Amino acid sequence: METAVLDTIEAAVPAIDSIKAVAAITVDTLASKSSLAATDAAVSQLGLTANNIWMMLCTALVFIMNLGFATVESGLARSKNTTNILFKNTITPAIGIIIFCLWGFNLMYPGGAYEGGFFGFGGFGLTAPAAESGGLDLTYAGGYTYWTDFLFQAMFAATAATIVSGAVAERIKLTSYIIFTCIIIGVIYPVVGMWNWGGGWLKSLGFYDFAGSTMVHSLGGWAALAGVIVLGPRIGKYVDGKINPIPGHSLPLATIGVFLLWLGWFGFNGGSVLSADPALTSLVLVTTSLAAAAGAIGALLASVIYLKTLDLSMVLNGILGGLVGITAGADLMSPNDAILIGLISGAAVVFAVIFFDKIKVDDPVGATSVHLVCGILGTLFVGIFGDKGFGGSAEGAGMSQLIKQLIGVGAAASLVFPASYVIFTIISKTVGLRVAAKEEIEGLDIAEHGMKAYNIDVDKEY
Amino acid sequence: METAVLDTIEAAVPAIDSIKAVAAITVDTLASKSSLAATDAAVSQLGLTANNIWMMLCTALVFIMNLGFATVESGLARSKNTTNILFKNTITPAIGIIIFCLWGFNLMYPGGAYEGGFFGFGGFGLTAPAAESGGLDLTYAGGYTYWTDFLFQAMFAATAATIVSGAVAERIKLTSYIIFTCIIIGVIYPVVGMWNWGGGWLKSLGFYDFAGSTMVHSLGGWAALAGVIVLGPRIGKYVDGKINPIPGHSLPLATIGVFLLWLGWFGFNGGSVLSADPALTSLVLVTTSLAAAAGAIGALLASVIYLKTLDLSMVLNGILGGLVGITAGADLMSPNDAILIGLISGAAVVFAVIFFDKIKVDDPVGATSVHLVCGILGTLFVGIFGDKGFGGSAEGAGMSQLIKQLIGVGAAASLVFPASYVIFTIISKTVGLRVAAKEEIEGLDIAEHGMKAYNIDVDKEY
Amino acid sequence: METAVLDTIEAAVPAIDSIKAVAAITVDTLASKSSLAATDAAVSQLGLTANNIWMMLCTALVFIMNLGFATVESGLARSKNTTNILFKNTITPAIGIIIFCLWGFNLMYPGGAYEGGFFGFGGFGLTAPAAESGGLDLTYAGGYTYWTDFLFQAMFAATAATIVSGAVAERIKLTSYIIFTCIIIGVIYPVVGMWNWGGGWLKSLGFYDFAGSTMVHSLGGWAALAGVIVLGPRIGKYVDGKINPIPGHSLPLATIGVFLLWLGWFGFNGGSVLSADPALTSLVLVTTSLAAAAGAIGALLASVIYLKTLDLSMVLNGILGGLVGITAGADLMSPNDAILIGLISGAAVVFAVIFFDKIKVDDPVGATSVHLVCGILGTLFVGIFGDKGFGGSAEGAGMSQLIKQLIGVGAAASLVFPASYVIFTIISKTVGLRVAAKEEIEGLDIAEHGMKAYNIDVDKEY
Repeated sequence: METAVLDTIEAAVPAIDSIKAVAAITVDTLASKSSLAATDAAVSQLGLTANNIWMMLCTALVFIMNLGFATVESGLARSKNTTNILFKNTITPAIGIIIFCLWGFNLMYPGGAYEGGFFGFGGFGLTAPAAESGGLDLTYAGGYTYWTDFLFQAMFAATAATIVSGAVAERIKLTSYIIFTCIIIGVIYPVVGMWNWGGGWLKSLGFYDFAGSTMVHSLGGWAALAGVIVLGPRIGKYVDGKINPIPGHSLPLATIGVFLLWLGWFGFNGGSVLSADPALTSLVLVTTSLAAAAGAIGALLASVIYLKTLDLSMVLNGILGGLVGITAGADLMSPNDAILIGLISGAAVVFAVIFFDKIKVDDPVGATSVHLVCGILGTLFVGIFGDKGFGGSAEGAGMSQLIKQLIGVGAAASLVFPASYVIFTIISKTVGLRVAAKEEIEGLDIAEHGMKAYNIDVDKEY
Repeated sequence: METAVLDTIEAAVPAIDSIKAVAAITVDTLASKSSLAATDAAVSQLGLTANNIWMMLCTALVFIMNLGFATVESGLARSKNTTNILFKNTITPAIGIIIFCLWGFNLMYPGGAYEGGFFGFGGFGLTAPAAESGGLDLTYAGGYTYWTDFLFQAMFAATAATIVSGAVAERIKLTSYIIFTCIIIGVIYPVVGMWNWGGGWLKSLGFYDFAGSTMVHSLGGWAALAGVIVLGPRIGKYVDGKINPIPGHSLPLATIGVFLLWLGWFGFNGGSVLSADPALTSLVLVTTSLAAAAGAIGALLASVIYLKTLDLSMVLNGILGGLVGITAGADLMSPNDAILIGLISGAAVVFAVIFFDKIKVDDPVGATSVHLVCGILGTLFVGIFGDKGFGGSAEGAGMSQLIKQLIGVGAAASLVFPASYVIFTIISKTVGLRVAAKEEIEGLDIAEHGMKAYNIDVDKEY
Repeated sequence: METAVLDTIEAAVPAIDSIKAVAAITVDTLASKSSLAATDAAVSQLGLTANNIWMMLCTALVFIMNLGFATVESGLARSKNTTNILFKNTITPAIGIIIFCLWGFNLMYPGGAYEGGFFGFGGFGLTAPAAESGGLDLTYAGGYTYWTDFLFQAMFAATAATIVSGAVAERIKLTSYIIFTCIIIGVIYPVVGMWNWGGGWLKSLGFYDFAGSTMVHSLGGWAALAGVIVLGPRIGKYVDGKINPIPGHSLPLATIGVFLLWLGWFGFNGGSVLSADPALTSLVLVTTSLAAAAGAIGALLASVIYLKTLDLSMVLNGILGGLVGITAGADLMSPNDAILIGLISGAAVVFAVIFFDKIKVDDPVGATSVHLVCGILGTLFVGIFGDKGFGGSAEGAGMSQLIKQLIGVGAAASLVFPASYVIFTIISKTVGLRVAAKEEIEGLDIAEHGMKAYNIDVDKEY
C-alpha cells in the first residue's frame, strides 16, 4: 500500500502546475467568444449596408424611368403637344412620391394584420420603426432600410401612373389628368398592389408576379385603355374608315427614352429581388437584358414581314414589350426562355398596335400595346415557362400555376378597368376630360401652357 | 489518518486524465483567437469596399449633374447661343477636375494643422497616403479611399462653377468666362469650402451645411449675381420699362436637364454622408426626393395663383429649388419637414424670378433664384427645423443654431460676392467681359464658334 | 515521509474543483470555433455580394454607352440620316447581347484548356456552373457571378461593334451593316479578345491592355477604317480637291452622347478591375476622369492653335480620345500620367481628323480618329509610362514592354483590318454595301425607313 500511495502522489503532482495554466485559458476563451459576437454583429450590419446600397441604386434607376417615359412619350407625339406631355410626366412623379408618403405606402403595405385580405391601411404618413437604441430599426428588413423600402416603392407607384399619360396624350385636359393621377396613385395602384405585394389574397393564392407585369404594367395599361376609350381618338386619326398615321415629332427623344427605360429596368427588376443576392440579381439583369434585346428583334422581324418597313418606333416599342414581358418572371427564367419571351412580346407589340388601330383605339405612343398586352402575356409566361430553379419561388409551369396567373390578371382587370372607366366618365361629365377641338388642333402647348416646346429661329439657323 | 489519505488520493486520481485534455484545449483556444483576428481584418476591409462602392456611385451621379446643367441651361436659353453654352458646360468640369487635382483639393482640405482657421494649403498635386505595405493607406478613411475622396470633391467643385455659367449666358465672352471659372474653382470655392468642410472656423463655430446649400449653391449664386450685375441685362430684355420674356429654345432639353440634376442629387446629398450608412443615406434620399417633388408642387401652385399659367420652366426650376433647399439639412429633416421645405423653396423660386426681373437683374435660366435664394433659405432651415435626431449632428432648432447659420451665410456672401464683383470688373476693364452687341444679336454660336447648334434641313424635313 | 505525503495531498486537493471547471471550457471553445467558421462563410459570401454589386453597376454603365454612341453619332451626322443611325445603334446592342449569349461569350472565354492559344470554343449557349447545392456556383469568381460576367462582357462586345456604325454612317445599307455587325460581334471581336482576355497567346506573351484600348477600341477602329475605305466618301465631301465640312445636325445630342460615354467609361474601366477593390477601382475612376478632362483641354488647345476655332465637336471628340487613351493603362498610371495622356490623346484626335480628311478617308463622326488612333496610342502608353505600382500587373515602362504592346497592336491590326476589308468587299460585291446616290442625297431616313427623325411644324411653331 505504501508504494501505491506514493505512485499516485507522484502522478498527482504535475496536476498542480497544469491546473494553474487552465485559469488563463478560461479567460482567453471567454474573451474570444465575446469578440466573435461583436464580429457577427459587424457582419450582419455590413450585410444590410451592402444590400441597401443595391436597393438605393435600383431606386435611382427606377426614378430615371420617369425621364424615360417623358422623353419617349413626347418624342412619339407631335411637337405642338410636347410641353404638355413633359409637364404631365414631370408633375406625375412629384405627385406620386408625395401621395405615397402621405398614405399610399401604408395602403399598399398595411402590415401583417391584413394578410390574405383585400384591403388594409397602416395609417397616414411615414413612421420609421424605432429600434431600442432610439435610431432606425435596422432589423426592419435584411435587405434595406425602411426609408429605402418607401422610396423604392414610391418610384414604382409613379411609373404605374406614367403609363397612362402617354395613351391619353394630345387631347386630355391637364387638370383632369392630374385628378386621375392622384386617384390611381392614391387608391387604385396601392389597393391592387396590396393584393400581391402587400401580402393580400393573390399572394396567399399563389399568384406570382415578380416585378409587376400585372401589378404595374397591365394595371397601368387597363387604366390607359379606359382613358383612351372615354376620350376617343384624336381629331384626324380615323377619317371615313381610313387610319391616318400621326408620326412622332422626334425619334432622338424617343430613342433616348427607350434606352433610359431599359437602364431603369435594371433597377425595376433587379431591385425587386429586394436584396443584393448575387445569383438572383445578376440572373435578373441577364434575363431582363436578353428579353429587351429579343424584343427589338421580334418587333423588327414582325414589322419587316407584316408591315414591310424598318420602323424604328416599332423596334423601340418592341424593346419595351420585351421588358414588360419578362418582368413577371425575370427571376425564374433561363436565358433561352428570356430570349423566347422577348421575341414573342416584341412581335406582339406590333400586332397589338395594328389591332388597336383597327378597332379605333387611338393610343398615340402605343402604351396599351406595350404595357397592357405584354403585361398580360408576361404574367401568363410564368405559368407557361415556369420556375427554372434559379431561386424564384413560383410553383413552376403547369395548369395549376397558369390558372393562378389568369386569376391575377383577371382580378386586376376587373377592378382597374371598370374603376378607371367610371372615374374618367365622371371627370368627363363634370370638369370635362377633353380639350376643345380648337385647342387640340392648335396644340396643347399653346392652349394649356401658352408656351411652345421649341423656339428655334428658322430663318437664322437653317 | 490512513483512510483520509486514501480518500484524498482516490479523488485526486481522475485529475491526471482531465489534465491531459487541457493541453488540447489550450491549442484550440489560441488557434481560434488568431483566426478571429483574420476575420475581423477581412470584415473591416469589406466595410471599406462597400462604403467605397457607394461613394464611387455618388461620384458618378454628381458627375452627371454637369450634363444636367448643360442641358437645362441650353434648353432655357436661345438656340443661337446653344453651342456656346454647351461649350462652357463641357469645358467647366474639365477645368475643374484638373485644377482640383493640381492644387484645389489640397487648398480645400489642407489637413488638421489648419483646424479652425481661415486658410490653409496642403501642397500641390495628389499624394495618396502610403501604407506601410507600400500600397494606398486604406485607413485614410473608413468610408472611402483617398482617390474616391478627391474625385467626389472635384465633381462638387465643378458644379459650383457651373452654376455661374447659366446666369451669365448669352452675352459673356468665352475666354472671360474661362478665366473666371479658373478663379472660382481654383481659389474662391476651395478657400470658402475649407471654412466648413476643410475643418475651418465655420466648422468650429458649429455652422451646419450638410451637402452645400451655402458651400456650393449660394456660393455659386453670389458669384452668378455679381457676374449678372457687371454684365448687365441682355439686349432687348428690358426695353423702356417693359420686361420682355425671352423663352428658352427647347423644353425637352430643359426637362432632361432637371431630371438628370434630380438624379445627380441622389449622389450629391447621398454621398455627403461620406459612407454608406444605411439609415442615414436612405433617409437623405427620401428627404431629397420629397423636397424635389414638393418643390415642383410649390412652384406649380405659385405660378398658377400668381402668374395664372401652367409654366413648365417654373415647375422645373421649382424642383431645383426644392433640391437646393433641402441640401443643407437633408440628413436632419423628417419626411414632413422635407415636404414643407420643398413647398417653400419651390414657391420662393417663382417669387425670386419675378423679383430679379423687377430689379432688372437678367438671369436667363434663373440660376440666382434657384441656387442663391434657395441656398440661403436651405441653410437657415437647419436652424428653423433643426435636427430631428435621425443621425445628423446639428444642435437642432433654435436661435443659437439659426445665428450660426446666418453667420455662415453672411461669411460666404461677404467673401464671394465682392471678390467675384471685383474679378468680373477687372476682366471687364481688361480683356473685356461682354461680346459686342452685333455678336450678341447674331448669337454667340456663330460669333464665338462659327458653328450652329442645329442644322436641320427645314425644306426637306418639315 | 508521512509529512511529505500530507503536503502533496494538501496541494493536490484544489485540483479536483479546478478540473471540474475545465469541462465547461472545452464545450465553450469548440462552440466558438464552429460559429467562427460560420462567420467566415458569411464574410466571404458578403464579399461576393459587394463585389457583384459594383460589377452590376459597371455593367449598367457600359450599357448606357450604347445610348451615348447613338446620340453622339446622330448628333454629329445630318438630320436626314438620323433615324437610320438611331436604328443601327438600337439594333446593335440587341444583336450583340443575343449573339454573345448564343456563342460569343464561350468563343471569347473558352476556358483554361485553350490557355496561350489562338482560338478556342467553350460550346453554345450559357451554362451557369452548378454548385453542389444545385444553385449557381458562387465560387466561380470572387468578384462576380457567372451571370454578371456574361452580361458585362456582352455589353463590351456591343460597344466594339457600335464604333463602326459612326464611321460608315450616312451611306451604308442597313442590311449590310447588320450583316457586318453579326460578324464582328460573333467572330472577330471574341476571337481577338480571346488572345488577351480569354487567356490566349497575347496574355501569355505579357501584352497588357487593361480595359481595351486595343481589344475594343483599335479593334473597332480598324474595322471602321476598312468600312470607310470600301464605302468611299460621302457625296459632296471631297469635290475637285476641296474638303467640304459637313457639320452635324445637333450639338446638344452630340454633347449628351459624350457625357453619357464619359459616365459609361466609369463602368468600362472601373468594371475592368473585375472586383470592387477599393484602391484600384477608385484610382481607375480618377485616371479615367483626369484623362477625359485633359483630352478636352488638349483638343481645345490644338484646335485653337491649329484651326483658330473654338470647335465644340473637337472638344467633345477630345474627351473621347482622352478616355480611349487611358483605357489600356487606367490601373497603372499616376494622376499626372493620366493628365499627360489625356492632353496628348485629345490633341491627337484633332490632328488625326485633319489627316484623315487630307487622305480623303471620310469618317462623319471621327470614330477612327478617336478609337483607332487613340486606341493605338493608349496601348503604347503602357510601355512608355509603365506601371506606377498602384496595383496593376504590367512589367512597367521600357523597351521590352513597349515591344509587347506593339505586338498586340500589330496582331489586332493584322487580323481585324484585312478580315473587315474582305468582308465589306464581299458584301459590296454581293448584297451591296452602299445605298444608291439618289437615296444618299435624299437621306437614309426616307430611303431606308420612310420615316423622318424630326417632324416639327415650322409654320405653327417657329
